[in-house]
Amino acid sequence: MISLVNSADSALRTRAQRVIPGGLWGHMNAANLPEGYPQYFAHANGCRLTDVDGRSFVDLMCAWGPIILGHRNPLVEAAVHEQSMQGDCMNGPGPILVELAELVVDMVPHADWCLFGKNGTDATTSCVTIARAGTGRRKVLVARGAYHGAVPWCSPSVAGVTEEDRAHLLHYRYNDLASVDAAMERAGADLAAIVVSAFRHDFGFTQELPTPEFAHHLRSVCDATGAALVVDDVRAGFRLDLRGSWERLGVRPDLSAWSKAIANGYALSAVTGRDWLRQAATEIFTTGSFWCSAVSMAAAVATLTELRRLDAPAHMRLMGERLRQGLAERAAHHGLAITQTGPVQMPTLLFQDDPEWQKGSAFCAETLRHGAYLHPKHNMFLSCAHTAADIDAVLDAADAGFRFIAR
Amino acid sequence: MISLVNSADSALRTRAQRVIPGGLWGHMNAANLPEGYPQYFAHANGCRLTDVDGRSFVDLMCAWGPIILGHRNPLVEAAVHEQSMQGDCMNGPGPILVELAELVVDMVPHADWCLFGKNGTDATTSCVTIARAGTGRRKVLVARGAYHGAVPWCSPSVAGVTEEDRAHLLHYRYNDLASVDAAMERAGADLAAIVVSAFRHDFGFTQELPTPEFAHHLRSVCDATGAALVVDDVRAGFRLDLRGSWERLGVRPDLSAWSKAIANGYALSAVTGRDWLRQAATEIFTTGSFWCSAVSMAAAVATLTELRRLDAPAHMRLMGERLRQGLAERAAHHGLAITQTGPVQMPTLLFQDDPEWQKGSAFCAETLRHGAYLHPKHNMFLSCAHTAADIDAVLDAADAGFRFIAR
Repeated sequence: MISLVNSADSALRTRAQRVIPGGLWGHMNAANLPEGYPQYFAHANGCRLTDVDGRSFVDLMCAWGPIILGHRNPLVEAAVHEQSMQGDCMNGPGPILVELAELVVDMVPHADWCLFGKNGTDATTSCVTIARAGTGRRKVLVARGAYHGAVPWCSPSVAGVTEEDRAHLLHYRYNDLASVDAAMERAGADLAAIVVSAFRHDFGFTQELPTPEFAHHLRSVCDATGAALVVDDVRAGFRLDLRGSWERLGVRPDLSAWSKAIANGYALSAVTGRDWLRQAATEIFTTGSFWCSAVSMAAAVATLTELRRLDAPAHMRLMGERLRQGLAERAAHHGLAITQTGPVQMPTLLFQDDPEWQKGSAFCAETLRHGAYLHPKHNMFLSCAHTAADIDAVLDAADAGFRFIAR
Repeated sequence: MISLVNSADSALRTRAQRVIPGGLWGHMNAANLPEGYPQYFAHANGCRLTDVDGRSFVDLMCAWGPIILGHRNPLVEAAVHEQSMQGDCMNGPGPILVELAELVVDMVPHADWCLFGKNGTDATTSCVTIARAGTGRRKVLVARGAYHGAVPWCSPSVAGVTEEDRAHLLHYRYNDLASVDAAMERAGADLAAIVVSAFRHDFGFTQELPTPEFAHHLRSVCDATGAALVVDDVRAGFRLDLRGSWERLGVRPDLSAWSKAIANGYALSAVTGRDWLRQAATEIFTTGSFWCSAVSMAAAVATLTELRRLDAPAHMRLMGERLRQGLAERAAHHGLAITQTGPVQMPTLLFQDDPEWQKGSAFCAETLRHGAYLHPKHNMFLSCAHTAADIDAVLDAADAGFRFIAR
C-alpha cells in the first residue's frame, strides 16, 4: 500500500502558497481533491504517474484528457525530436502545418478547413466569433452548466465577469428539445450559433450521451435558421470517434472545437469548419505568439496517425467496458450503489446518495493508497496505453476502496 | 544574392489555401509581407532562419518576439530535454513550477505573485478580469490603437465582435495626460484598470516611449482611484529591463502581462501582480489544458536565468545601437529619409513620406534578397544571439536595399 507521507509535495505546496495565488490556478489545483492526492508530479510514463514523493499510480485522468497514447509515447517523442532539431517557433510555420491541416481535413468529414491555436478556450472562442462573423448575428445558445472554457464569456466563475460578457448567451438544457426551442424563440432572428458539448460532461453530475433526437433537432433548427451548429469536442475529441464525436449520430456540425488529446499532451487546439464559414474564419483575427510553432504540430501528426492505426476509440472502448463491468461487480460485491455514466472511454463514477461526494472522496483516497489515481467528481479518461492488466490493477485498487466504504 | 525562386514555398501555400482559411490565420500570414518573403520555414539556428527553399537569412523578427536567446539555444534545449525525459503534461505541475514562480517573483520587483498561461492574450485577459474582480468595477482604459490580444474584447478585427464585448472599454491616447483624464472622467467611480503597453508599439506607426510624466500620471491616478495599473509587457518584456519595462521609470504596475520571450519560444505566458490583487487572482477561474505542463516552465527557468547572467537587455541595447547608427548612416549615404523609433532592442524603421509603406516594402524585399529578414511595418526584435558581425551583415543587406530605393 502506498504511503500517506507526501512531505516533498507538502513542502512544494507551502512554497507555492507564497508566490502563486491560492497555490495553483484552475482545474489542477489539488486542494479540490481528497486528502493524500499529490499536487506535484516527478515522472510520467505510459499510463503511470509518479509523484514527487516517489509514489506511483495507474492513472485514469490522463492529465485531464490530453494524454491519449500514454505519456512519452515513443512515436510522438520521435516526431517531436525530429522537428525540434529543425526549428519550432519561427517567423512562420513549418511544412508540418500543411501536413497536419490536410490530415485533419481528411479525418473529419465535416471539416472543409481548419485552423490551430493553443488552448481549448482559443478554439471555442474562435468558433463563437466565426459563427457571429459568418451570420452577422449575435445570440449563442449554450447548455446550462456546460463548460466551454475559462474566459469571461464562458468561465464557471463570475469573479471579474461583467453582465455584458454574457449579454448574448441564452441557455437550454442538454437533451431537452423544448428548452432549445424556447431559447431559440428568445434569440429570434439574431441566432448565430448553438454550442453543444460532445456529451453532457458537467463536473460532479451524472453524464448524459446526446439522444439522437436532440442531436438531429439541433442540426435541423440550425439548418432552418442559418445558425451554426458548434460541437465542443475539446474534451471528448478523438476518444469516441476519430471523425468527430457526433459523426455516429449522423449529425455533422458547422464548426467544431478541438484540443486536449490532439497532440498527446503538446499544446495545440483546432477549429474545424465548413466552407460556408471559411470567409468568416478569414475575417476574424485570431492568433497567438506560439500558434505557428512546428513541434506541437509534429506531435499532432504523429498522434493522429497512430490513433488511426490503432483504431484508438475501439481500444479505449474495450478497456472502458472492462473497467465499467469490473467496477460494477466489485461495488455490488461490497453492497454499494454506484452510478457509472458517460462513454466508457471517459467514465464517471459517482456514489448514490452522495450529494457532497463524501463517499466518492473517501473511496478515491483509499483507491489512491492502493495505486490508482481516480477522480471523485470529474469524468476520467482512458488512453491507448491502458492494457487489460492496467485496468485490472485499477480494479484491485478500487476493490480496496469499496471495501473501505462498505465498512 | 538570394534567389527569388521559392517554389517549395509556393507549393505549400497552394496546398494550404485549400485547408486553412486565407492560407494562414493571424500575424504570421506572409500575404501581408512584400513579395519574395517566405511563408514556410525549414530550419532555425541562433539568429538565422532557413526557409523551405533553402534560402537563409539573418533574422530581425525573432518569431515576432519569442526568440530572445537565439533559436535552439543549447542551455534552453538541455533544460527542455531533461524535463521532457521526466514528464510534461501530467495531472499537475512539476516542481519546476515553484522554481519558476519564485524566480519571477524574485526578478520582478512589483511581483508578489504570478500565474502562468499559454498565450499573451491569456495574460492580458486575466489581468483585466483580476482587476475587475479585485475592484468590483468594470471600466478599463486602453490606448486607442494599442494591441492587447486577439479575442473579441481586444482584437484588431471587429468581425464577429459584438458591441457588448467592448462595452466597458474607454480610450486614451498614449502619452497624452489630458486624454487619460477625460477617459477617467467618463469611467467615474467604475474604473477598474488602466491598461498600457510598455511603449507605444502600434503596427505601421512611429513608436513612442512612455514619457516619465505619462507613466507617473497613470500610477498616481490609479493610486488615487484604487484602480489597477496594468502594464502589457507581452511584447517588450525581458528586452528592455528584466525587472519589467517600466521599472526604470520608477513606476510599478499592479499587474503585468508577459509572454513572448519568457521561455525562448516555448509556449508560456505569465501574470504578475501585487498582494492586494492576490485574492482576486484566486477567485477568477483561468486555466487551460496545458497550463501546468512542465517543459515550457523548464524552458522559462533556463531562459530567465541565462538572460540574467548575460545582462541581456544591455547586450541587445548595444547591438541595437549599432544597428540604428549603421542604418542611419547608410540611409543618409543614399540620400534617404528614414525614421527609426522605439527602443533600439525593438527597432522600427519607416521611410518618410511613405504612408502606404511602398518604399519600406520595396526596401525590405531587396534587403531580404541580400540575406536579412526585416519587417516594413512592425517593430523588429533583436536577440542575444545577434553579434556585431550579424548586425554588420544586416547593414550590408540593408545598404543594398537603400541603394535600390535611391535609384
